Amino acid sequence: MEPRPQRLPLDSALSPYAPLGPSSALSELPVTSDEAAIQPPRALPLDLQPLGQVQESFIVAVNSDGLWIVDQHAAHERVLFDRHVRRRQEKKIEVQRLLMPIIVQLKPEQQVTYQAIADELAANGFEVEPFGQRTVAIKAAPADLPAEEVEKLMVEILDGASPDNAALSLDELRGRITASISCHAAIKVNMALDQSKMDWLLQALGGTDCPMTCPHGRPTVLRYGMKDLMKAFKRI
Amino acid sequence: MEPRPQRLPLDSALSPYAPLGPSSALSELPVTSDEAAIQPPRALPLDLQPLGQVQESFIVAVNSDGLWIVDQHAAHERVLFDRHVRRRQEKKIEVQRLLMPIIVQLKPEQQVTYQAIADELAANGFEVEPFGQRTVAIKAAPADLPAEEVEKLMVEILDGASPDNAALSLDELRGRITASISCHAAIKVNMALDQSKMDWLLQALGGTDCPMTCPHGRPTVLRYGMKDLMKAFKRI
Repeated sequence: MEPRPQRLPLDSALSPYAPLGPSSALSELPVTSDEAAIQPPRALPLDLQPLGQVQESFIVAVNSDGLWIVDQHAAHERVLFDRHVRRRQEKKIEVQRLLMPIIVQLKPEQQVTYQAIADELAANGFEVEPFGQRTVAIKAAPADLPAEEVEKLMVEILDGASPDNAALSLDELRGRITASISCHAAIKVNMALDQSKMDWLLQALGGTDCPMTCPHGRPTVLRYGMKDLMKAFKRI
Repeated sequence: MEPRPQRLPLDSALSPYAPLGPSSALSELPVTSDEAAIQPPRALPLDLQPLGQVQESFIVAVNSDGLWIVDQHAAHERVLFDRHVRRRQEKKIEVQRLLMPIIVQLKPEQQVTYQAIADELAANGFEVEPFGQRTVAIKAAPADLPAEEVEKLMVEILDGASPDNAALSLDELRGRITASISCHAAIKVNMALDQSKMDWLLQALGGTDCPMTCPHGRPTVLRYGMKDLMKAFKRI
């Protein structure tokens, strides 16, 4: 038998992504009469009214169900992830050419990985060329990405897709690449958002297929329902 | 031995009130890594910025500690309770004369209670006169009280101070009367508050001696600290 090839097959169909980690966000947290637990909600309503932010990181919103708290980074990651998957399927990834190529020195194992996933990087909006020994030049990157994130993202993708990890399927590789792009392109925590940006983010999140978790499987939204609020204040 | 007198002695010093019910608001709720519990806070900071209301009932506020939720009715009760106690001590209870006396028909046990606590009612801003058999006329009431609440309040006080409850001390009676007046005078839930009213209420609550519980011992404020928020979003 020949050894298992390190180069990943790139021609299988792009399947609908799955969250990359175990998603516990939809599980029910225990709520007793003595304590009120913040519950990850089951669905995201479209009538949320953002009131403001906690520490410029978490959006606080209300509707008739109660109080909602949204992790602005995780929520934007989900929005960008879904858009990237859709555009990848439609072969309409938007690309930004960099003013100056970014030169990245690769470790030996990163070089091996780069050769294995070069086509997949190209399909996701990267234009990367060999540039001497174990060095590559990034000439273009996915459009949403801040330029200062490009090198960090490339290294993260190469390290996360190490061919040592033989169990990594193509779908998983694509999911990881897309999650990494989304993470580096998403708004950060500790960033003030005005009313229109908060409105936009909640609406965009509600329009995704899986609004309750970020691509890494963490919760994007918590709800503190009216009943739990009433219990916590000992009104019921 | 003579039977225990039903008329309560009215000349003992007004002691600092105590919450009327058991106060569990300051106990620590369990927080595990899997669930985030809303914690009743230990102290009320003065830098809370109100963002808005949940269901026109609970004020949502933020500061560097995290997210705060305030029961607007319970909070206003506490503010009015403290003010009433202070004014009672200073013998400066403000009184409103009613345009028309409110005639209240009393049950036999209410009549007994009324006779027992008439002086205490007067000291708390009520001007009440006998008006035929088992009937009284309320001519004046504490100043903050909406007129439509006066009769309900009187009946509640009389029922709550029933002489059947021989264990009721004068301090407890005064606490109950003050709590009842505060409850009926306080803003209700399901009432929209503008920014200035929310600001005023949080500042006034912070200035009370016991801002964390209403006069009945229920929590006025819940806090969702930054650490708990981070845990709930699986960031730590």
